[in-house]
Amino acid sequence: MSFRASLLTLYPQMFPGPLSVSLAGRALERGDWSLETVQIRDFATDRHRSVDDTPAGGGAGMVLKADVLARAIDHASPEGDARPRLLMSPRGAPLTQERVRALAKGEGVVIVCGRFEGVDQRVIDGRDLEEVSVGDYVLSGGEPAAIVMLDAIVRLLPGVMGNAHSGQSESFENDLLEYPQYTKPQVFEARPIPDVLLSGNHAEIDRWRREQAEALTMRRRPDLRERKKNLQKG
Amino acid sequence: MSFRASLLTLYPQMFPGPLSVSLAGRALERGDWSLETVQIRDFATDRHRSVDDTPAGGGAGMVLKADVLARAIDHASPEGDARPRLLMSPRGAPLTQERVRALAKGEGVVIVCGRFEGVDQRVIDGRDLEEVSVGDYVLSGGEPAAIVMLDAIVRLLPGVMGNAHSGQSESFENDLLEYPQYTKPQVFEARPIPDVLLSGNHAEIDRWRREQAEALTMRRRPDLRERKKNLQKG
Repeated sequence: MSFRASLLTLYPQMFPGPLSVSLAGRALERGDWSLETVQIRDFATDRHRSVDDTPAGGGAGMVLKADVLARAIDHASPEGDARPRLLMSPRGAPLTQERVRALAKGEGVVIVCGRFEGVDQRVIDGRDLEEVSVGDYVLSGGEPAAIVMLDAIVRLLPGVMGNAHSGQSESFENDLLEYPQYTKPQVFEARPIPDVLLSGNHAEIDRWRREQAEALTMRRRPDLRERKKNLQKG
Repeated sequence: MSFRASLLTLYPQMFPGPLSVSLAGRALERGDWSLETVQIRDFATDRHRSVDDTPAGGGAGMVLKADVLARAIDHASPEGDARPRLLMSPRGAPLTQERVRALAKGEGVVIVCGRFEGVDQRVIDGRDLEEVSVGDYVLSGGEPAAIVMLDAIVRLLPGVMGNAHSGQSESFENDLLEYPQYTKPQVFEARPIPDVLLSGNHAEIDRWRREQAEALTMRRRPDLRERKKNLQKG
């Protein structure tokens, strides 16, 4: 069975959006994965089809209602659905490549896209929503975050990247940022390709790339190296 | 003058995509910001309109060519253009809410969306591209990352969020994750709204929210608190 993504959103027209193009788009056409959108508003029961209300205790913005969202979740992900239920939220655990790999091995995902000031905490607790953050910044809603996460997952699904591409030398795959890349022409605006890369000596090339990746990571992301050291200790 | 985003991409059809909807979409219609796409392939000069070639030194995948991309950049961002030139890349500095705020105060952004195995390092150096990462995971290309970054920026542009929403209590605005939110009904599946939020005592409510935000941040993101402590020391 192929990977199934169910998206709960107030803006279903945002999907598949960029995911209908290129790698993810071709995979969608081939049926390597599928995408279903669920309009949260369809589960409102009052005359105005309200999905949000003012925050208890005061404050700016509006809060997505627990009862409406719970009904939408129960519809999209009935009992027995083994897929994880994720809530895109800046309060969440940061998404990592490791988590992306784990999600890509599963049956699919149920993704709740938050909007407004937030989501009533009781539906997060009552429906076991796992809060996931794509980064330390604030978006207008969870939809763009869901697109980013799905793009990262879909490229790892079986058959999607095809060819010999292993993903082994990519950024984060070894807690290293990727080494610098070069291609023809041999000289660009008086900048030559480093000699070693044209030497044909593969051991030398591997060593140079490793050194470059380590130096870049230490300069730009010492936290990645720390994380690795701590994992090795633990 | 309104905020100008120029996007260099092989997939212009991905834009504006989700940015044509909701908050960002209404702001685009109003002219609070503008979006221009530049097809990198239009700057290829060979018969096959090639934009990429094999990596010098070997390895999987393809590398975006320096000469083609440089011509596209020079077209989209001629000399005198004060906008920063960003390259969406997992090798980049992680995007933060602070950087988003700074970008939103500027004239706009020139965004290069990488694809393939990477971008020839010489165009990164020669055109002063600032590598920016939206998170520690690998995407099929820079386009979904650009959409996320623009969404974060656009909501902070003058006039876009309107109303009384200050953004002050949001996640990251004080290096704290946001406190839990609740709204009607008062009881949802036997879960009541915490009493304090219904007390009407604003000092108590503020204290409770602050405590909740601090406890959540310590539990889920101790790194944010460390970052703050280090900044205060520095």
